Formats: sequence, structure tokens, C-alpha cells
Amino acid sequence: MSLTKRRLAHIVFESNDRASKMFDVILLILIFGSVIVAILDSVADLRAEYGRIFFVLELVFTFLFTIEYILRVWLTSKTMKYVFSFYGIVDLLAILPVYLSFFIANVQLLTVVRALRLLRVVRILKLGRYLAEADFIQKSLKASLAKIQIFLFAVITIVLIMGTLMYIIEGPETGFTSIPRSMYWAIVTLTTVGFGDITPETPLGQFVASLIMLLGYAIIAVPTGIVSAEMAKQKNPEHHASTRTCTHCGKDGLDRDDHFCKNCGYPLD
Amino acid sequence: MSLTKRRLAHIVFESNDRASKMFDVILLILIFGSVIVAILDSVADLRAEYGRIFFVLELVFTFLFTIEYILRVWLTSKTMKYVFSFYGIVDLLAILPVYLSFFIANVQLLTVVRALRLLRVVRILKLGRYLAEADFIQKSLKASLAKIQIFLFAVITIVLIMGTLMYIIEGPETGFTSIPRSMYWAIVTLTTVGFGDITPETPLGQFVASLIMLLGYAIIAVPTGIVSAEMAKQKNPEHHASTRTCTHCGKDGLDRDDHFCKNCGYPLD
Amino acid sequence: MSLTKRRLAHIVFESNDRASKMFDVILLILIFGSVIVAILDSVADLRAEYGRIFFVLELVFTFLFTIEYILRVWLTSKTMKYVFSFYGIVDLLAILPVYLSFFIANVQLLTVVRALRLLRVVRILKLGRYLAEADFIQKSLKASLAKIQIFLFAVITIVLIMGTLMYIIEGPETGFTSIPRSMYWAIVTLTTVGFGDITPETPLGQFVASLIMLLGYAIIAVPTGIVSAEMAKQKNPEHHASTRTCTHCGKDGLDRDDHFCKNCGYPLD
Amino acid sequence: MSLTKRRLAHIVFESNDRASKMFDVILLILIFGSVIVAILDSVADLRAEYGRIFFVLELVFTFLFTIEYILRVWLTSKTMKYVFSFYGIVDLLAILPVYLSFFIANVQLLTVVRALRLLRVVRILKLGRYLAEADFIQKSLKASLAKIQIFLFAVITIVLIMGTLMYIIEGPETGFTSIPRSMYWAIVTLTTVGFGDITPETPLGQFVASLIMLLGYAIIAVPTGIVSAEMAKQKNPEHHASTRTCTHCGKDGLDRDDHFCKNCGYPLD
Repeated sequence: MSLTKRRLAHIVFESNDRASKMFDVILLILIFGSVIVAILDSVADLRAEYGRIFFVLELVFTFLFTIEYILRVWLTSKTMKYVFSFYGIVDLLAILPVYLSFFIANVQLLTVVRALRLLRVVRILKLGRYLAEADFIQKSLKASLAKIQIFLFAVITIVLIMGTLMYIIEGPETGFTSIPRSMYWAIVTLTTVGFGDITPETPLGQFVASLIMLLGYAIIAVPTGIVSAEMAKQKNPEHHASTRTCTHCGKDGLDRDDHFCKNCGYPLD
Repeated sequence: MSLTKRRLAHIVFESNDRASKMFDVILLILIFGSVIVAILDSVADLRAEYGRIFFVLELVFTFLFTIEYILRVWLTSKTMKYVFSFYGIVDLLAILPVYLSFFIANVQLLTVVRALRLLRVVRILKLGRYLAEADFIQKSLKASLAKIQIFLFAVITIVLIMGTLMYIIEGPETGFTSIPRSMYWAIVTLTTVGFGDITPETPLGQFVASLIMLLGYAIIAVPTGIVSAEMAKQKNPEHHASTRTCTHCGKDGLDRDDHFCKNCGYPLD
Repeated sequence: MSLTKRRLAHIVFESNDRASKMFDVILLILIFGSVIVAILDSVADLRAEYGRIFFVLELVFTFLFTIEYILRVWLTSKTMKYVFSFYGIVDLLAILPVYLSFFIANVQLLTVVRALRLLRVVRILKLGRYLAEADFIQKSLKASLAKIQIFLFAVITIVLIMGTLMYIIEGPETGFTSIPRSMYWAIVTLTTVGFGDITPETPLGQFVASLIMLLGYAIIAVPTGIVSAEMAKQKNPEHHASTRTCTHCGKDGLDRDDHFCKNCGYPLD
Repeated sequence: MSLTKRRLAHIVFESNDRASKMFDVILLILIFGSVIVAILDSVADLRAEYGRIFFVLELVFTFLFTIEYILRVWLTSKTMKYVFSFYGIVDLLAILPVYLSFFIANVQLLTVVRALRLLRVVRILKLGRYLAEADFIQKSLKASLAKIQIFLFAVITIVLIMGTLMYIIEGPETGFTSIPRSMYWAIVTLTTVGFGDITPETPLGQFVASLIMLLGYAIIAVPTGIVSAEMAKQKNPEHHASTRTCTHCGKDGLDRDDHFCKNCGYPLD
């Protein structure tokens, strides 16, 4: 690898000196700019007036992202691994649909893909203290995963049985036209969202609905309890994590920055 | 019990070799298939077009579940205990109504019963690590049960008093036509579901409604706190998980740093 | 106090033998019966048909509650203290309005007061294990009270400022006709109830509403966190509650059912 | 500083003797009175009838607040620091707009500013035990801040992607007229507010909406878990509260049962 190429790779992949930080900041601005243009472009009034500008901006963003993608493919030492990695695919999806749209006129797919560009921000945001915190949340959620899955399975079983019950009690007159629609209503109710687009009208239907609401109100405690307990557990890992031991008296659990054993006073190395 | 019968029983009740796992997987597919057919059958458009196919599929599923039920009754050593067990009744309810429907044309009851088939999935899903997690959630909920019951009693008292109050303040003009209906509204509001099918219109009604909402927002902390505390407590079961046993008297659960058996006073090694 | 009076007082105030338990059960049935009649009486259809029966039942209930009240006043040793205690007032309110209604025809007040009868259930329900649990919840809530009050003050400040802001942004066209009404909407939104009777229509209004919703979604963590932490703290009182100490070696914290000191092996009495 | 000025400063800034407490109480009444007048003034019916009285009261309040502001500026020793402090600006905003309104007739801005006066209450309410509790909540929230920010960033990413998806699935017929509006709906749904002003009508839209609701129902556990864990942790601050200091090297925070300074090895007494 030549020196220039190594320097470029440093700028693109790292973020610990001026040039590489500048690269990240510019990229962040481009991503947010591109997402904001996509959002504004969806407002009918704004598209009518500024549609042309939005289109040109989109082309500019895509052109710059294409250069970035080519740079990444060229500079990375494990090209194939990058291309088929999660972020490799996100990077490709951030540009490919724009080129495809010249041939196939599916504007809608294009819009979603442009929103997905926001995911690219995650990679760039390697901000020191946030990383550790994000890692903490991720670990807690991973540790809770199996329990949350069981909870979701229980919720779906409740939703199916309650949805079917309400479909029979209320019937199509009040909006419970089919079991899938009743299940949609059961989810709206159990999660305490409560749109009100479908509501029970019969006294029996309102009674069963009340039971579902109380159930939803009570079982929200389950995921919260799971995550809280997991987070409380994860909270003090470093406290007992030290395995440093005094070679003189064998006292363990010494802090990493101690200079002398706190039990016998022997100097530590 | 003959060898063939023993082999069959193993396939039906266990899930630790190829044949028995295959049996479970086929059963899972049949259950989910049957539930999905019941759901699709409830959509008017689909029933109009594929009603016949759904009917035939239902017969096939019922026939196969009947064979399974007969197998279970025949193969189990404690027949009566199985028949009147929770799952024995769920298994029977999964097939009986279809046969009854040939004589009594109550399609609605049939639909609920078919949804109940989903409960059968629970028995089959004896997936190792999920079992321990489900057990943990169950234990936490059981330990919280008495507190949750008290909480629900308090909620129902609030709902009755607030429902009556709103019935008097708002009156039948704005939908608060009776105390039961007002209580339904109070549950909708207290659980933060908020359909919006009934809403207070008078300033005083809106003021009381605000109090109920703030109350509902605050007291959700109670069940969550209960379950969180219970889960945090259950988290460290190793505390009493000691398997150290006195060689003299057989007393188990001794602490690791005990020097003498706390039951018989025998010196521990 | 005569023997008969003492026996009667025991039946009315205690619940540890057959007669006193029977008294409590009959009273519970009367209270629930009276509340259910009040609820059913509010349904127009039922009142039209069974209004007379409800009225007679109400008179019977009131007559019996009156006898009970007179009994309590007569039997209690500290009459004045009882009459002006919380339950003394609830007991009086459970009967007085019915008599007043013969003179003043305010049926509405009557209905609320009858709902308040449910509060009387609380006194009777001195069920062993529930008492300890209820006590636990009460203690946790009392310990959290000051923090919850601060939280509610913060919520009301947010509601006032956000309500005023939305009143100005949206204006009377979309239902935000006054600050009190805007504050009602802000509470509906912040507590995630979301009736949908008043909703922002302007883009700016929807943006501010989004902020309020995210705020409401995030700050629900505060009361929950307060109560959870308080409950987790209250959770392990008995763990260190044992004050049993070995008379031989002075080792404390011994379990109540240990027969020998786990530190020195000395037999405990 | 003269004696009179010092006495005045004590009355205005402190609250530990009769005169200074009286000053605080009067100020509290004025603030609440002014806020209540602003609220009532926004109700069309009341303004029509009592508009004049409200206007005069507003002038009186503003006059008194102006005197208070001048007093504070004059009495404080660090004038500039006060004027540009948070409360200095709040104090100025509490009076300035009223004077400006004589020249510029923007009544709306005036109303918000008057609601902001409520913030001034916070400074006065230096009630002993509440201070410690408020401090506890503040510390817990500060410690959770970074994690809550990450959570909010994740929520906004979900809202953008889900909003875009629903905009494409549902289209403008059912109210999803633009991505910003779809994002507003996604926030309404994810936070379980559920106004019901915009609701999905297509089966696919309802399916995606169900996923968003389940997601919202599950991830509320995250902020709650964060704050709960933080509060549980803050609960026992004594753990690191050791003030034991090495007399030799001055290293503080030594554990109570250390025999030698862990920094310099000097024997501790």
C-alpha cells in the first residue's frame, strides 16, 4: 500500500486527527442534508415549487456518496468482507436506487432507501463517551432478549385470542370486520395506544375491552422489569472486575491504579 | 407395554431424537397452519373465494389432531389424569367443536376454539434456554401476584368512584350515559389507552379527567416497581443456590464459609 | 361493659371466630350488593323496568347500614374518635344522603355517595397476607411521596407552558379555544392518553406536539424509577432482620431455625 | 453596603426569618395570581366580561414585579452576573413584554411570557426536604442523560424510517400526506399516545402500525430501566462516601478497613 493510499485510508476510516475528523463532519452534513431534502421533497407544496432544486441536490449527494463508496471499496484491505457487511450494503443502498430510478420509475422505493441513509450516521458517530453508553444499552437489551421474546410470544397469543373473541362479540357492524382487523385493534388496545378508529359498542364488548386494557396496563411492567433488573445487574461490573492480586500477601481485588497493597503495604508493580 | 408402543410414546411425548423432533415440527406446522386458516377464513373477501379450500383444510387439520389425541390417550400411562389436565382439555377443545359443528351450526364458537389451538404450541416449545427464562418470568409474576391483586382492587375502586363522578358531571349528552359506560371510559383513561369514543366536554369534566390521567400516569409506576423489584430480587438466586451438604446429617444449603453444620453441629471440611 | 355488649363488640370489630367472620361476610355482600344496585340503576333501560325493585333494595341496604352504624357508635369505647375518623365519616356518608333525599331531590349526589360505599370494603378486608403486601406498597409510596410531588409540580409547569404555547400556535380553529382547554390537551398528550378530541392541525403545532409526546414518553421513567428504587430498597428488610446471636462466640445474624452456631458449632437454644 | 441595604438584601434573597419569609409568600401569591389571571384571560367568555379587571390586575402585577426586579439588580453584589443568569433573564422576561406591548400589539407572545412566570416559583420554593429530593432526581437524570440521548436518537431514526414506510404504504388518501406528517403519526403511535386523527386503513399499513406499537410498548422499558438503575445506584451513595484520608500522602477515599494507604504504603491508624 502506497503512502498516499495509507493516508487516504486513515482519513476515511479513522477520526483521530484534523483531516479525518473534517471528512466525518462533511459526511455527516451530507447525510443529514440528503435526508432533509428527501423529507421536504415529500411535501406536495414544496415539491411543486422547489422540485427541481431538490432533484439537482439529490444528484449531487448521490454523486458524492458514490465517490465515497468507491473510496471505501478501494481503500479497504478486505474488500469482499466490506461489500457484504451490514454497512457495506447500507452504503450501496444509499446510492444504487438513484441510478436505478433513471431506468425504473419507482419513486416510492427510492424514498425509503433515502431514509435508510440515516443509518449511516450511526457508523460515523463514534463519539467517545456515547460509545460506552450505547454499548451498555445494547448489552442490557441482548441479555434481556430471550425474556423479551417470550413476552412478545405471550402478547401475540393474547392478541390472537382476544382479537378472535372481540370479532365474535362485536361483529362487522362496529368495525371488527375480520380477525386480522380485530387483532390490529387488540394490539392498539393492549399497547395502550388507543387510536379510537375501531371501538367496541356493545356492553359485553366494552367489558372485554376493559379487561384487555387492564391487562395491557399491568403487563407493561414485565418488559420494564426485565430491562431494569438487567441494567441494575450490569451497573456494577467494574466493581468486582479487578483481579489484581498482591504477590506478597495474596490479597486480591486491588484497584488497577494502586501503588501499594492496601492489606500489607507491599509495593505493587 | 410393547416395544412398538413404547417407541411411539417416546416419539409423541419426548423431543430428544430425530423421529420425536420431526413429530414436534410437523405438529407445530399443523397448529400454525390451522390458526392461519381460521384467521384468513374470517376475512370476507378471502372466504368468498377460497371458502371451500379453507373448509377442506380444516377437516384435514381436525382429522390429524384427532389421530394425535387418540394416540396421546392411548399412549399415556395415566389416561384419566391426562384427559382432565389443562392440556388434555385444550387438546379435546381443539377437535371436538368441529365435529359438533356438523350438528349445531354455531360457527362463531368454532372460531374462538380454533384460536385456542395456539395454546398447544406452548407445550411443544420446550426449547432449552427459553424454558429457564419463562420460568424466571413466571416466578417473578407469581411472587408479585398478591401485590398486583391489591393494586387491581385499588384501580377498580378508583374506576368506580371516578366513573360515577364523571357520569354525574358530564351526563348522557356527551356519551356518559350510565355508570358502567362511565367506568369503561374511566378504564380507557386511567390505563392511558384513550380511544376518544367518549370524551368530556364540560370544563369541570375535563378537569376531573385531567386528574384521572395524571393519576393513571403516576400509578403505572406501582405494578412496574413491584415486578422490577421482584425481578431484581430473583436475579441473584445463587445466593441460596449453595449445594454444600453436611456429610453427617445430610442438611443441604449450607453457606460456603460455615465451619460447622448449622443443623447438627458436625465440623465441616 | 356488659358481657353481651362485649360479645357484640367482638363480632362487629374483630374477625377471628365464626360469628365475627360471618358478620364481615354478610357486610361485604351488602356493600357489594348496594354498589351493584347503584350501578345497574344508572342504566336507563334497567331503571325503566326494575326501578321500583332497585328503590326498595336501596331502602333495605340503607336500613341495615343504619343499624350497623348505630351498633358501631354504641359499641365503640371512644365514640367521638370513631365518629370523626375517616371510616366514621365514610360510614355516615353511606347512609345519611338516602335520608336527606327524602327531603331534597338531588339524586346525583346520592349516586356518588353510594359509590363511596366501596371504600368501606377496605376496612373489612383484613385478609392476612394481603395486609403485609398492602402495607409494603403503602410504605413504598409514602417514601416516594416527596419525589412524586416534585415530579407532579414539574409536570404541571410543563403542562402550563406547553398548553399556552399550543394555544398561541394552533388557535381556536382547531379546538385550542383557551389556555385551560389547551392545558387539558397537554395533559391528555403528556400522559400518553391521547383521546384525539383535540388535535393539532398546523405543521408547527404538530412539531411541538411531537416534542410533548417524546417528553411524556421519556419522563414516565421518573415516577417509575422512583417507586422501583424505593421498592427495591424496602425489599430486603428481613434479610438482615435476624438479630439472633450465638451466646458462645458472639456471631450474629444467625437464621431463626438454626440449631447450632454456624461459626463455632455451639448448640443454640 | 449600608445597614438598611443589607437588611433589604437579606429580606429579598434569604428566607430564614419572619420578614424574608413574608416577602417570599407575598411573591408566591403574586406569581400564582398573575398566572391564573393569564389563564382566565384566555377564556373568551371571561375576557368579554372581566377583560378590564384582568388588564388592571396585569398592570399591578407587572408594576410590583418591576419593583422587585429593580430591588434585585440594586441589592445584588454581582449585578452583571445576576442580569445574565437564567433567573435574571426569567425575571426580566416576566416584566419586559408588558411594557413592549404598549408599543407593539402582539398579545400572543405576551401570553407565553406570562406563563413563563411560573418558572420563578422554582427559585422561591427552597423548602428544606424537597430540595434534597429534587437534587436526587436531578442527579439521577443527569447521570442518565447520555443514555437517554442515545435512546432519543434511536427513537428518531425509527420514527423517520417508519414514517417514510407508512407514507409509501398508506399514501395521501388516509392522511399520510407527507413524510413530516407521517413522522408526526409515527411519534403519536410509538409513544402510545394514539390520537387517532390519522390512522392506517390498508391491511399492510395496519400490520406495519402493529409492529410500531409493539416496538413502542417494548422500548419504553429502556428509559425506565436506565432511570431506575441510576436511581437504585444513587440510593446508596455512602458506599464511596468514605472521607478517610492518608495522613502521609493526603490520598482520600480510602476504605474504612484498609490497614495501609493504597497510594503510598504508609500504615494507617
